[in-house]
Amino acid sequence: MTNNDGRWFAVIMAGGQGTRFWPESTEERPKQLLDLLGTGKSLLRMSFERAASIVPPSNILVVTGRMIASMVAKDLPDLPPGNMLVEPFGRNTAPCIGWAALHVRRRCPEGIMTVLPADHLVMDEKAFSVVMQLAMERAQSAGTIVTIGIRPHRAETGYGYVEGGRVVSGPVLEAVRFVEKPDRLTAEHYLQDGNYFWNAGIFNFSAERILSDIGRFLPALGQGLDRLGKAMAEAGAAGVPESLLEETYSTMQPISIDYGVMEKEDRGAIEVIPATFGWSDLGSWGSIYERLPCDKDGNVVRGGTLPVLVDAKGCLLSTSRPGKVVAVCGVDNLVVIDTDDAVLICPRGRDQDVRKLTEIMKSHRS
Amino acid sequence: MTNNDGRWFAVIMAGGQGTRFWPESTEERPKQLLDLLGTGKSLLRMSFERAASIVPPSNILVVTGRMIASMVAKDLPDLPPGNMLVEPFGRNTAPCIGWAALHVRRRCPEGIMTVLPADHLVMDEKAFSVVMQLAMERAQSAGTIVTIGIRPHRAETGYGYVEGGRVVSGPVLEAVRFVEKPDRLTAEHYLQDGNYFWNAGIFNFSAERILSDIGRFLPALGQGLDRLGKAMAEAGAAGVPESLLEETYSTMQPISIDYGVMEKEDRGAIEVIPATFGWSDLGSWGSIYERLPCDKDGNVVRGGTLPVLVDAKGCLLSTSRPGKVVAVCGVDNLVVIDTDDAVLICPRGRDQDVRKLTEIMKSHRS
Repeated sequence: MTNNDGRWFAVIMAGGQGTRFWPESTEERPKQLLDLLGTGKSLLRMSFERAASIVPPSNILVVTGRMIASMVAKDLPDLPPGNMLVEPFGRNTAPCIGWAALHVRRRCPEGIMTVLPADHLVMDEKAFSVVMQLAMERAQSAGTIVTIGIRPHRAETGYGYVEGGRVVSGPVLEAVRFVEKPDRLTAEHYLQDGNYFWNAGIFNFSAERILSDIGRFLPALGQGLDRLGKAMAEAGAAGVPESLLEETYSTMQPISIDYGVMEKEDRGAIEVIPATFGWSDLGSWGSIYERLPCDKDGNVVRGGTLPVLVDAKGCLLSTSRPGKVVAVCGVDNLVVIDTDDAVLICPRGRDQDVRKLTEIMKSHRS
Repeated sequence: MTNNDGRWFAVIMAGGQGTRFWPESTEERPKQLLDLLGTGKSLLRMSFERAASIVPPSNILVVTGRMIASMVAKDLPDLPPGNMLVEPFGRNTAPCIGWAALHVRRRCPEGIMTVLPADHLVMDEKAFSVVMQLAMERAQSAGTIVTIGIRPHRAETGYGYVEGGRVVSGPVLEAVRFVEKPDRLTAEHYLQDGNYFWNAGIFNFSAERILSDIGRFLPALGQGLDRLGKAMAEAGAAGVPESLLEETYSTMQPISIDYGVMEKEDRGAIEVIPATFGWSDLGSWGSIYERLPCDKDGNVVRGGTLPVLVDAKGCLLSTSRPGKVVAVCGVDNLVVIDTDDAVLICPRGRDQDVRKLTEIMKSHRS
């Protein structure tokens, strides 16, 4: 492990709600806290261990929300208590990253940070670690924003892309632009082209740099962060009063770092390092299906489910009740997710619609 | 209520296993004990109340199995305890009816009995009662076997039929023959013809007549029943020792009264009274779907299920856990039946295959 004299920090963003894994994910237990692949560890726990391959636990910050803070702490007993940042409300990634940058800068004015989503999958942890070292070193030496671009191996329409340009140093390319989720044809063009990479939402920069860029591109957010930064300096070890944090957060507009900052950066400000470490954003039950072993009929069975299958192919069967039978007859490519509170049934291709279902449920409740 | 001086008896056959309603029906709680239509009463309870519109509860006998005897008793508190006949093993309907006939004959040598399945549905109870009075009177006065034929209103391939012949008296027709479940074309011919009726499994005859006919067509069963009859006469009120009943039952071949007796009867021995009282054998989840009210998209929701539907039509949703969400997206005509122990998913047209699923489960267990 390289750590450059304690200058390096990892910020894990663990505030997501992960409604697409309903009914297993809920507000009280969102995606990052679930062991979706049956590894015995939550996605958050795996992200933490990956971060710990780059920086020591004392330099890992985890940003999360109030509702799940105690579960996050339980899941990460080796995270120093002061390293958990609890946002009063979720405001998307830009405020989250800005606030974390304040903490990094206070601890180390020349701190370099990597920002990592808590709920993604990385298969090759070693390759990940190697690429991340390189990205941190580059962010430190060049002062640029360094992102990781996953080399696509299929024409995926579910991810955003980053276009790589000229080589600036070794494997580091200039990042020409970020593009939103493409249509099928465009995704096929990207795959052929070879210069487009999946945007994995991993960014590396100095705390100073990102705070300065937020101030430039999102001035209102920048002012809010300035207020918080001053309060932090004055309060010292006691920390900022909860009421001030709440007040400041309530004035912040929710906006993503991609849309609010990255897409507005000058040419040359962002660099991309292409990587291949078995990455997935695990965006839907379909992506879980693809990651788990299947039987000869392509059926995948999770956890303690007792499957009974007649004339069924390509199904994903799951129940949170060990020993419960899930019986499927005469249906193909169906996702069945059972919990004590709900059972979800939808075709694998439609599992992005799970969000719709959760919205309908919310509207029923209110 | 007519009861002809206590000569009339009703025998409710409540020994069925009803595997087609798995996972709600189980060996411990078969179909007849379920409230499949949400009426607040089990099918058995409804059958009992129908029987009580023809004969007093003291003249109703209920034949059932050991595993569910206590639940039957609980469901029918107004059934005199001595009127429940518990078979040591299920041996299909011929032994069951023969044994019940011994009891009827002992109570009343000239007893007339109607044999009723415990797990069928009758919508028009009043029409049922009127037809049954007529059938009992005919069985008593003519000494024939009188069956009820349901006038078909669709070309049903899931039922057996009885063909009506010449008029013998008022609405009573000669029964020409019993036929097994027909194919689609034959069923359409039956519907057009007008002389074919659904065999509802309801038979009326004197106890003496059926015991004599069993002796003639099923001599081995007849001998077993003779032994039991003699033992009953000797034992008197004490009843036949359980061990003798067990021993005798173990020698009996399982056979249905339809196949073992009715199909072998001479021309003229059986009569049929056509009837229309909203009958169904409730043979599958599909038949439950058809009996319950649906929303504008043809979706039917049972019990305390909270449905969440997106782009779904013609589904039957059910959970035994009140308040549990059943969410279906992008699927049509699907049956979803959830209990604490299992969840079943199959297309409505395939729900006859549920039996297959239960067989697979049994083979897994053994």
